[in-house]
Amino acid sequence: MRYELYYWPGIQGRGEFIRLALEEARADYVDVVRQPRRKGMAAMMHILENTRINYLPFAPPFLKTGNLIIAQTANILLYLGPRLGLAPKTETKRLWAHQLQLTIADFVVEIHDVHHPISGNLYYHQQKREAKRLAGYFTQKRIPKFLDYFESVLNGNPKNSNCMLGRSLSYVDLSVFQVIAGLRYAFPKKIKKLELKFPRLVRLHDKIASRPNIAAYLASDRRLPFNNNDIFRHYPELDI
Amino acid sequence: MRYELYYWPGIQGRGEFIRLALEEARADYVDVVRQPRRKGMAAMMHILENTRINYLPFAPPFLKTGNLIIAQTANILLYLGPRLGLAPKTETKRLWAHQLQLTIADFVVEIHDVHHPISGNLYYHQQKREAKRLAGYFTQKRIPKFLDYFESVLNGNPKNSNCMLGRSLSYVDLSVFQVIAGLRYAFPKKIKKLELKFPRLVRLHDKIASRPNIAAYLASDRRLPFNNNDIFRHYPELDI
Repeated sequence: MRYELYYWPGIQGRGEFIRLALEEARADYVDVVRQPRRKGMAAMMHILENTRINYLPFAPPFLKTGNLIIAQTANILLYLGPRLGLAPKTETKRLWAHQLQLTIADFVVEIHDVHHPISGNLYYHQQKREAKRLAGYFTQKRIPKFLDYFESVLNGNPKNSNCMLGRSLSYVDLSVFQVIAGLRYAFPKKIKKLELKFPRLVRLHDKIASRPNIAAYLASDRRLPFNNNDIFRHYPELDI
Repeated sequence: MRYELYYWPGIQGRGEFIRLALEEARADYVDVVRQPRRKGMAAMMHILENTRINYLPFAPPFLKTGNLIIAQTANILLYLGPRLGLAPKTETKRLWAHQLQLTIADFVVEIHDVHHPISGNLYYHQQKREAKRLAGYFTQKRIPKFLDYFESVLNGNPKNSNCMLGRSLSYVDLSVFQVIAGLRYAFPKKIKKLELKFPRLVRLHDKIASRPNIAAYLASDRRLPFNNNDIFRHYPELDI
């Protein structure tokens, strides 16, 4: 089954959590909006604006496979996980994986809102004062709180596997990799200090980066570079 | 199977989306932290602080049933839905229900952030200026965008059932009820005008409110009143 991924072009964004799973599994997929000839954007907007469609998405990313459309990043991974061999086998463990993914999603919202505390309808420079104020709390309180939680999950894994859950790699590990890589880009000074406290997360990041399929993906032009139109943005004045 | 719900006392919060499902289904549950004798809070904190626990939650609400702990509101409803008769039967339709629930969750984050745009570690009065600025965009752009989406989903339901999906009531309908009720409390002026554009959402709200189990719940002291320590807060200066 071929998967069609629909997401905004030019950024990794939330689409990247899906791409990493598809790439690790070497799945047959097409990144629709990034195809040549620019028909992809029209196709995406057609789905978003067609209010009579089944399974109408509120926003990208969404995945199309046959007649099925699935939106919401964590929901897409809930669907793909078992099909790509990146999820545990039992319902209980799948709920646990999904719980972790939803906590990552919450963190991603907060990471985005650091540079857009007032509105997504405004540019960063129009909300820079508020962003600086928020960044003080975010870097002091929230980044350590989330990283501490994820480090605790790694430490508490009864299988001691350096995976987030159980013995085997899951889509959650790939998403944790993406968060660590993104935080390093956005808040290099802060993260450099913090990482000393979270050695398992760093090890997990490095392990994922060196997996053959992920390494090949990261070296390819399918992996967009981090940039300041994206969720993870590097504004030195926010790296407090 | 008895369900134990763990959530902060004194507010409806995210716990309310779970309570509404449990109440509609007349499930056997206990709202642990709200029990007399105050042992509930200690039990909740014990779970949150015990980093060696299986399925460690990042934050309340979480549900305990037997040895299983499930956190993240939408994840709890994903688990409970089929068990309470409040979810569709097929995987495809369950993913669709969950997609809608995650979009509601995104909306709830934004509703909360209107009064806390800078930090949850500060009081409202410490971030009032930023809140007022955010509220202008939120009431003009985001509330209409989300309500328009949910109204489109009701309109687009091929079963024309005045349910969010298919022919039967689901946990998603109960959550939409809660969002409409909360918005009416928080932004009464704005919502009074907007509701004219979203007649189906209003009808869904009213239909849910008059269901016998929900009506009995809303009239009981198990339903906490809306209040300004909660997600939905009424600050007239933000009702723009």
